[in-house]
Amino acid sequence: MTRDPRYDILFEPLKIGPVTAPNRFYQVPHCTGMGFLRPRTLAAMRGVKAEGGWGVVCTEYNSIHPTSDDLPHAYASLWDDSDVRAHRLMTDAVHKHGSLAGAELWYGGARSPNMMSRLPPMDLASVPNTAGHPFQCRAMDKDDIRTFRHWHRRAAIRARDAGFDIVYVYATHGYLLSNFLNPRMNTRSDEYGGSLENRVRLVRELIEETKEAVGDTCAVAVRFSSDEEVGEDGVPIYGERREMFEMLQSLPDLWDINIADYSLEMGVSRFVKEAPLEPYMSWVKSVTDKPVVTVGRFTSPDTMVSQIKRGVTDFIGAARPSIADPFLPKKIEEGRSEEIRECIGCNICYAGDSLSAPIRCTQNPTMGEEWRRGWHPEIISEKATEGRVLVVGSGPAGLEAARGLGKRGYEVMLAEAGREIGGRVTREAALPGMSEYIRVRDYRKQQLLVMPNVDIFRESMMDVADVMAVEADHVAIATGSRWRPEMFDDEMFHQIATGDAAARVLTPDDIMDGRLPDGPTLVYDGDGYYMGGVIAEHLHRVGLDVTYCTPADSVSRWAANTSERWRIRTHMMTLGIGIETAHSIAGFDGHTARLTCAYTGADRAVSASHVVMVTARTPNDALYYDLLGGARAGALPFTLRRIGDCEAPAIIASAVYAGHRYARELETVVDIDEPLRHDRVDVGLGAN
Amino acid sequence: MTRDPRYDILFEPLKIGPVTAPNRFYQVPHCTGMGFLRPRTLAAMRGVKAEGGWGVVCTEYNSIHPTSDDLPHAYASLWDDSDVRAHRLMTDAVHKHGSLAGAELWYGGARSPNMMSRLPPMDLASVPNTAGHPFQCRAMDKDDIRTFRHWHRRAAIRARDAGFDIVYVYATHGYLLSNFLNPRMNTRSDEYGGSLENRVRLVRELIEETKEAVGDTCAVAVRFSSDEEVGEDGVPIYGERREMFEMLQSLPDLWDINIADYSLEMGVSRFVKEAPLEPYMSWVKSVTDKPVVTVGRFTSPDTMVSQIKRGVTDFIGAARPSIADPFLPKKIEEGRSEEIRECIGCNICYAGDSLSAPIRCTQNPTMGEEWRRGWHPEIISEKATEGRVLVVGSGPAGLEAARGLGKRGYEVMLAEAGREIGGRVTREAALPGMSEYIRVRDYRKQQLLVMPNVDIFRESMMDVADVMAVEADHVAIATGSRWRPEMFDDEMFHQIATGDAAARVLTPDDIMDGRLPDGPTLVYDGDGYYMGGVIAEHLHRVGLDVTYCTPADSVSRWAANTSERWRIRTHMMTLGIGIETAHSIAGFDGHTARLTCAYTGADRAVSASHVVMVTARTPNDALYYDLLGGARAGALPFTLRRIGDCEAPAIIASAVYAGHRYARELETVVDIDEPLRHDRVDVGLGAN
Repeated sequence: MTRDPRYDILFEPLKIGPVTAPNRFYQVPHCTGMGFLRPRTLAAMRGVKAEGGWGVVCTEYNSIHPTSDDLPHAYASLWDDSDVRAHRLMTDAVHKHGSLAGAELWYGGARSPNMMSRLPPMDLASVPNTAGHPFQCRAMDKDDIRTFRHWHRRAAIRARDAGFDIVYVYATHGYLLSNFLNPRMNTRSDEYGGSLENRVRLVRELIEETKEAVGDTCAVAVRFSSDEEVGEDGVPIYGERREMFEMLQSLPDLWDINIADYSLEMGVSRFVKEAPLEPYMSWVKSVTDKPVVTVGRFTSPDTMVSQIKRGVTDFIGAARPSIADPFLPKKIEEGRSEEIRECIGCNICYAGDSLSAPIRCTQNPTMGEEWRRGWHPEIISEKATEGRVLVVGSGPAGLEAARGLGKRGYEVMLAEAGREIGGRVTREAALPGMSEYIRVRDYRKQQLLVMPNVDIFRESMMDVADVMAVEADHVAIATGSRWRPEMFDDEMFHQIATGDAAARVLTPDDIMDGRLPDGPTLVYDGDGYYMGGVIAEHLHRVGLDVTYCTPADSVSRWAANTSERWRIRTHMMTLGIGIETAHSIAGFDGHTARLTCAYTGADRAVSASHVVMVTARTPNDALYYDLLGGARAGALPFTLRRIGDCEAPAIIASAVYAGHRYARELETVVDIDEPLRHDRVDVGLGAN
Repeated sequence: MTRDPRYDILFEPLKIGPVTAPNRFYQVPHCTGMGFLRPRTLAAMRGVKAEGGWGVVCTEYNSIHPTSDDLPHAYASLWDDSDVRAHRLMTDAVHKHGSLAGAELWYGGARSPNMMSRLPPMDLASVPNTAGHPFQCRAMDKDDIRTFRHWHRRAAIRARDAGFDIVYVYATHGYLLSNFLNPRMNTRSDEYGGSLENRVRLVRELIEETKEAVGDTCAVAVRFSSDEEVGEDGVPIYGERREMFEMLQSLPDLWDINIADYSLEMGVSRFVKEAPLEPYMSWVKSVTDKPVVTVGRFTSPDTMVSQIKRGVTDFIGAARPSIADPFLPKKIEEGRSEEIRECIGCNICYAGDSLSAPIRCTQNPTMGEEWRRGWHPEIISEKATEGRVLVVGSGPAGLEAARGLGKRGYEVMLAEAGREIGGRVTREAALPGMSEYIRVRDYRKQQLLVMPNVDIFRESMMDVADVMAVEADHVAIATGSRWRPEMFDDEMFHQIATGDAAARVLTPDDIMDGRLPDGPTLVYDGDGYYMGGVIAEHLHRVGLDVTYCTPADSVSRWAANTSERWRIRTHMMTLGIGIETAHSIAGFDGHTARLTCAYTGADRAVSASHVVMVTARTPNDALYYDLLGGARAGALPFTLRRIGDCEAPAIIASAVYAGHRYARELETVVDIDEPLRHDRVDVGLGAN
């Protein structure tokens, strides 16, 4: 296939100071949950992005000195020579494919707790740690500022020595430099505070000093926020940012523009759609001749072209779209845009940073597995034999298994009990705000439709006899799970109601089936991720009086990791949904739910005609066990595996991953004792 | 000095199966925030404990297979040969001092989310992750149980190959094996569930198989809980635990006994005092001939002897006391019991595990720094010159600086403005539940009193002229900090009241000074650690009507990391203290506090005659800056540093650490660019 000429502009090489990007696809710095802890995992992942056509591939934030230490988050570092060696793995992997490698230098200031280095953080003044740890920073005096500049310069040189082509001055996201720029925070009385000129001084010095130190070989980029305050969505408050930008506009080689509200900049699709930063970019390009990059969860090449043609940006910046599809640029280049695996905006990638675990992606199961398991997002080994595979269930696990197996060349029969494929994805995507989740189904559906060796059988509920009749060589059971109506107390499941009242206890599956309450409803969220809040919103939207109750202190507790918890609770409260935190449910009689305080055990009653329990799921594993029962009697004529929620109900990303793993591993040798490589300190290989 | 013969019993060698412990001091397995991520840091730390006389030194929990992956917590692992090499560092360091090394094998089951390995966790049944992550486990079938036993055996062999002398079967703390034992959870219908005999089966098999695999060279220990349920403190509910224990009692070589309630087993001193497990141990020794170890935050050798003589335990188990003083056994052995640095029960050590950062200790600033900075808890280099040092302020930073400098041989003058030394420690220890914190002062006071080269000057408020008059060569300003009455909005400080109302806005310092409210009081906790709750309790105890308000969702939010958040809120609610979460304070007019919902911005009013603001602190750095101002005019005749809260207000552990670092570094060469060794993957030293 050939590229649509409309997209040619995306593939123009573009100069950035002394270096030239091969195209306009620019992976901006983003966290990975890897950092200095997992350099081999990291380098392989970034290298695959370059291979997939991203013309610029950047690191996550690189601490320039131990006084900026962000544990528990897995940041990168440029502290010493061992860092230079580690980063060299990444720059080599990126250069191999003709792309540029960028390093973001970072100093946390009041936001870094320094729990590992135990050195006092430094910032404008002695203020509480803005990430909520009980370690105030110390006020920087002028010696400290000089020392900081020295460290920044030193880290820039290390970045150059590690082979980076672009070095960042990072002046946003509430870290040190953005605090210096901030008129509310920076009330210093010396030449670094007070007036605009003074507040800009440190950033100006760093740009100049970085250029002076490495500007002959490296471009110097600045990450800068185009708005000053968190405005209502789409209503930017520029304040003095434009004036500030005008003062600096000619100094760096590239501007990487973002905004003050992180939850909008990288908002979940439930609340934020494609290109949310566009209103904030209105004046940027008119003020500078330097190339500009910004983000917007861009997955449509038409939108990308439009952004460039309308002068919003020069580079198509991306974090999440490059995670969901490292080969997005290549697919556009080769006229295969419809094969793009589009980001669904679930932010499960960000949870890796939140939880200091390697990044994962709902859409791209190979993300983070490039080194550890040797998985490539676009390449999968050919089938080992002429075997035929039956996949039962077309949810995220079944679809991905069928896709992977189809690509390997197997003859695949995908059996779906219902009329629609997609399983939980199709059902959940119909709930408020969840529409982009359907991309999990649609990408795979589109892939399967063009595979002659894959057949999809709808309305094909399978029992043991049906499975046997197919005469497959391999059978994967991907029948998903269903929500349970019980409460789980960390040890046991409990029914909360008996008799008639039990019929008024519903689950998310009932709601998604259209079985709705007809009176005041209590949604009980023992799960803690998004489902409880989404169900509450759905019931509110159909006109019910809804109260949301959770035994946790926080609404949608775990969604803090995907950076949406705050928005969810605010959204629910704004809608008028009642909130009861720190209470578990003890019983329900059809009229009243009895809640128990999670701390004191004190009871309280809430009127409700129905309760929706969002607590746990039961795997739909009857078919698996029926088949296995047969196997115990005699050998089955096929290999049998259960995958996804049918094995262990979890997030959609886990189901996709399970389907992919099944497809990868079928008829290959897998060492179940040592199933993955472990990117860890190996002291036997040399002392330090 | 010689050992008190009363303590001889503590130093008897004791056989544990095929190995012999040199004494009864037994460091039980405990987390470190290091695990497989920081093997050099870990090995040096464990080695120092052996050097200090701990006859047995164990690891943290060792995952036996990637299907048990506890990230973000920094667990240890025994997955492959690289783990064997890493552990060898630790066992060599422990053996060097004649001690035994123990490895705790661990399988998380429903409690491990497997966020790195992405393999489904396995447990009894498919239940929600009991640590709150949205990943249910899968139900183990009999093949899975066989595979699990194979992995356990394999890990035991690796442990032996790594040089361990004791290998644990870990059957407590809500992980897989304790779930199999649990009658509420284990309702399996096969031979591994239901009856007591069946539920015990897996643990029995593991003990037997571990003995069979490594029992010729290694002792096999079992960690077992002597109670079944969380009872009221001191009222154990044994249930069937005794019967279960009787069935297994003769199988292992050692029993490591703990209890079901983790927050009692390793309770903070605010709620739990020394030896809380004794009521739970009443029958254990009478049922088995095998040696027994248990814990109790033991720091008194008399208590230890009593525990042994009364047949409560054979070994003195310790985690926290061995962290606070790695040389506790040696000090008893050498008749220096009064030099023991006693654990204060603050659990800041545990925060390292919670936050995946290396363990730190309030009392022992060298904890975790043995490899990184080369610090030894009992050895510090001699002074470089005959210099005289003035330390201004006798809080935790000043006291520790004086102690370290005194030990180095410097002539030290410690100036204290008040009549009592100890600074914030003395003040805070007078608040409810905080009495053990005074040990931070008392240990140092006792050390300083016997140093002829250290003089303490009380009631000696110092100004610039006073400091100059001392004619010291080095001056350390350790004047602490004071609580601010303002609210901090993550950018700026705000006064919440004006005029007469402002006089009714107090701080923790006012309360500790005895300046108490005389009417209904709102305690506003913007800090999130322990102080807000403690002040609220204190005011309640003097008879005031108290409401606690925090902008966070949780009471004492950060204290979740020290495992006391749940107890704090329950305690406050039980006392009758009102709780307002998720509200910040917008204003106070002397009669009413105006609170603002952290989510919607909606206002609500709370009646109060006084408000106590627990938000942030101002360093008491006037003297430092006055001296520095003089220095700008001309060179000071001494070196000048500020340390502790006076530099950057933080937790007490940070102040002690800062004082220690000052003492260590004075007149030594410190590379401020690369101040510590970094225990990280160094890819340049060999590919993996």
